[in-house]
Amino acid sequence: MNQWKNLDTLSTYQEIQKDNHAVDLKEVLSGEKGTERVAKYQIPMAAGLIYSYAAKRVDDQILDQLKKLAEECQLAEKFEELYNGAVINTGEKRLVLHQLTRGQLGEKVMADGVDKRAFYAEQQVKIAEFAKKVHNGEIVNEKGEPFTTVVQIGIGGSDLGPRAMYLALENWAKKNGCFKMEAKFISNVDPDDAAAVLADTDPEKAIFILVSKSGTTLETLTNEAFVKDALKNKGLDASKHMIAVTSETSPLAKSSDYLAAFFMDDYIGGRYSSTSAVGGAVLSLAFGPEIFARFLQGAAEEDKLATEKDALKNPAMLDALIGVYERNILGYPATAVLPYSQALSRFPAHLQQLDMESNGKSVNRFGEPVDYATGPIIFGEPGTNGQHSFYQLLHQGTDIIPLQFIGFKNSQADTDVLIQGSTSQQKLCANVTAQIMAFACGKQDDNRNKNFAGNRPSSIIIGDKLTPEALGALLSHFENKVMFQGFVWNLNSFDQEGVQLGKVLAKRVLAHETDGALKAFSDLLNI
Amino acid sequence: MNQWKNLDTLSTYQEIQKDNHAVDLKEVLSGEKGTERVAKYQIPMAAGLIYSYAAKRVDDQILDQLKKLAEECQLAEKFEELYNGAVINTGEKRLVLHQLTRGQLGEKVMADGVDKRAFYAEQQVKIAEFAKKVHNGEIVNEKGEPFTTVVQIGIGGSDLGPRAMYLALENWAKKNGCFKMEAKFISNVDPDDAAAVLADTDPEKAIFILVSKSGTTLETLTNEAFVKDALKNKGLDASKHMIAVTSETSPLAKSSDYLAAFFMDDYIGGRYSSTSAVGGAVLSLAFGPEIFARFLQGAAEEDKLATEKDALKNPAMLDALIGVYERNILGYPATAVLPYSQALSRFPAHLQQLDMESNGKSVNRFGEPVDYATGPIIFGEPGTNGQHSFYQLLHQGTDIIPLQFIGFKNSQADTDVLIQGSTSQQKLCANVTAQIMAFACGKQDDNRNKNFAGNRPSSIIIGDKLTPEALGALLSHFENKVMFQGFVWNLNSFDQEGVQLGKVLAKRVLAHETDGALKAFSDLLNI
Repeated sequence: MNQWKNLDTLSTYQEIQKDNHAVDLKEVLSGEKGTERVAKYQIPMAAGLIYSYAAKRVDDQILDQLKKLAEECQLAEKFEELYNGAVINTGEKRLVLHQLTRGQLGEKVMADGVDKRAFYAEQQVKIAEFAKKVHNGEIVNEKGEPFTTVVQIGIGGSDLGPRAMYLALENWAKKNGCFKMEAKFISNVDPDDAAAVLADTDPEKAIFILVSKSGTTLETLTNEAFVKDALKNKGLDASKHMIAVTSETSPLAKSSDYLAAFFMDDYIGGRYSSTSAVGGAVLSLAFGPEIFARFLQGAAEEDKLATEKDALKNPAMLDALIGVYERNILGYPATAVLPYSQALSRFPAHLQQLDMESNGKSVNRFGEPVDYATGPIIFGEPGTNGQHSFYQLLHQGTDIIPLQFIGFKNSQADTDVLIQGSTSQQKLCANVTAQIMAFACGKQDDNRNKNFAGNRPSSIIIGDKLTPEALGALLSHFENKVMFQGFVWNLNSFDQEGVQLGKVLAKRVLAHETDGALKAFSDLLNI
Repeated sequence: MNQWKNLDTLSTYQEIQKDNHAVDLKEVLSGEKGTERVAKYQIPMAAGLIYSYAAKRVDDQILDQLKKLAEECQLAEKFEELYNGAVINTGEKRLVLHQLTRGQLGEKVMADGVDKRAFYAEQQVKIAEFAKKVHNGEIVNEKGEPFTTVVQIGIGGSDLGPRAMYLALENWAKKNGCFKMEAKFISNVDPDDAAAVLADTDPEKAIFILVSKSGTTLETLTNEAFVKDALKNKGLDASKHMIAVTSETSPLAKSSDYLAAFFMDDYIGGRYSSTSAVGGAVLSLAFGPEIFARFLQGAAEEDKLATEKDALKNPAMLDALIGVYERNILGYPATAVLPYSQALSRFPAHLQQLDMESNGKSVNRFGEPVDYATGPIIFGEPGTNGQHSFYQLLHQGTDIIPLQFIGFKNSQADTDVLIQGSTSQQKLCANVTAQIMAFACGKQDDNRNKNFAGNRPSSIIIGDKLTPEALGALLSHFENKVMFQGFVWNLNSFDQEGVQLGKVLAKRVLAHETDGALKAFSDLLNI
């Protein structure tokens, strides 16, 4: 039986606190020692990726302590408990099964009288069949013409993950002859969002995916109505243009308003749903089900690595532990996610939700307040763009912000140009390498304005190329990292009560049931 | 003569520190008092905007102290010194003249033997004439066909600001019949960025704007070569498709490689250049010079408000002071920028550069280390999207993060739908109102997981509609806010030495002049 304890009650944590010695990156990365450190401080990941933590402020002693912390926290055992179907989401009393959507780990999990692995696999097969029919012209519009665009209507987890994954593979798919349809996304309740997407889309040739687990998300239902209006105005039958991704118990599940419905369930949180039907429908339509399957395969392989009990051989677990060390021992408030890959332009926005919604909490899984810092701020933009933007503060600001770099040896499009003796891809890779060392080691200068203090820690995940497998592995790595950090902080990483109060108050504003300052602000906005 | 002193040496600051009393937002926003506070704690801005700070943790006493701090800091006088042409950028020994690009404030400023106001105005006129000729078919491609797309090639300030402004007005322009050409942007040295934009563009009908002040930015020159290759492969003459925005002394200025060249200079930092030719060329081509002029007009009016000496009547100055209070007295590490407007989707990314690159510094304007926190982390996404993403942490995380909301009473497209008794626009406005109060006042619940501590401060800028004038006013507000904060912290907000070290090391990597850890990391990335 696993023990769920607050971080500050663990003897290993107290030991680390007491023992607190700051590692000087300038020292440990210098000379021959530095070469050895880079070679040693890395762990292989799935799909040929590696996780390098040589520029983190840890040494063998701290790593040994973190490994012990993982054991005292029973991280591997808790993960096992999770994927074998325990009620890990204590707040909502739910199982947490997103790993099952990629189908590899653990025992048979039964819930609601159903074998859940089989259920998710069945949805994937149904989606694949549907997508193939769209692609081969069996499913067409009213005029018998093929659909050329897919538009996802969803918000939060039904938007950020699938959108980031689509953008990550769009140009790879175009290059590799598996681009089937363009995908677009409508999320915001701001009517200008839907209006802009529709102005740029031929609705006659578009298939819309309505994504809402509960079937009651106000933004999504509103945007559905917006789209239906637009279809009706064009004389089109909306039910011939829409599919639903929802839970079997939602009002959308058996509606005749949709060409088809594909299912997820309460055991998959929105922010963990990219590998479920939520990501599956749009990605299978855009790139073909084979590509979606390859993406799942990468995630499944990475999940398997996350079961490793030795934290020093488990990239997600070690990444999580170093993050806790930075947050709770070193006191850093944020983490910047910096992919040196334009294709990952929205990956930081997805991780922002994944991490901040999972671990941005002040009570433990039993609802008791905790006395230590939990989830950090997550933000980021692709490099080299960020270098010309907020890196100034990262290098010379008054707070230290740990960095998560991601880089690939090769571009997706394989189109390049040789300028000043190097390709763009080489320049891109040279820049991320240079940044790691600039942040870690800094540079002394008598002109203090040109002085770099260094000791600004980073890790990097390096891959050969951003393929579907590599993307799946990346996604799984961060999902599992966040999960492990939630275990260390003793949080329930799978609910989100913090989003409720705003919803309640917004309803009250719309019903004009307000007084005092709430009414005064409503008046300012003319509601 | 203005005095430039460190914040912690100022007597008013020491007084505020000593006097530190926490304002309880639940208390001050309750009942009738709350209504009065909302009415009182707001300042009119240009273009019909208002700045409301009723949900900030300040009261009359703190405001009075902040006003005194502004006086002791000589904020208004320093701004005057700046726009009248003093060498405010001490590091690079340069004037700081971006306000002159909207042409309203102060005395004649001479530099390099030229009247600078006239110089910027002249560039605007030249751009307007060029844009009109493109629009009316006087300037066409080799086949005599009109140009239909403009592609900006630039990075950092030559990308983020202009891109955010373009996206902010794109749908407004379409709705209002002044949309002339689609604009696209290439920034990243990642070859997949240029490849993707070009794959989606007909180069035959595209006009490219190369933007680099120095004419030596490696990313931009590389992407220029990338584009020239693509044009050549199509049998097109690149010099008939490209214009340059650069300084008069750059190698690009007099090159015959360009259809035309428009000028900025060293007195306008990249992140402050949206109202110069850097933003002017692309926005004038996309929407017409009249729209760009309206945008400048909004910025000019807001600049004028920033000259007000009484901090309590000066929105940018008060916003700056409250931000300093939150950063240095209350100890908050970050600010989230949350526009409830899909059109402002990239505005937070622009502010991220503007703020973090300006004030992310550890030395004062004389190059001496400072002993207090300076620029915070800036991040954000549009609402309501963010509500379904990172707001969980904002509401219930262990750190308090001040919030900057932006909202408009009306949408840009005026297309809407009535669902459950309200329009989408009403839902959008109801949500931002609700969030202000949810963050400020929270909600007690015996179930601690559903408990909201409140006292999470926010301000909101409210407008009627996001027009060119409103956008200009918004931009100027934040530019001036950042400038005032730089004055308070005694920083030089106009250089960026922190970006240099990475560039130097990247060159070394590309030249294979590496050893130790730098070589080891380079090897991992196959450079």
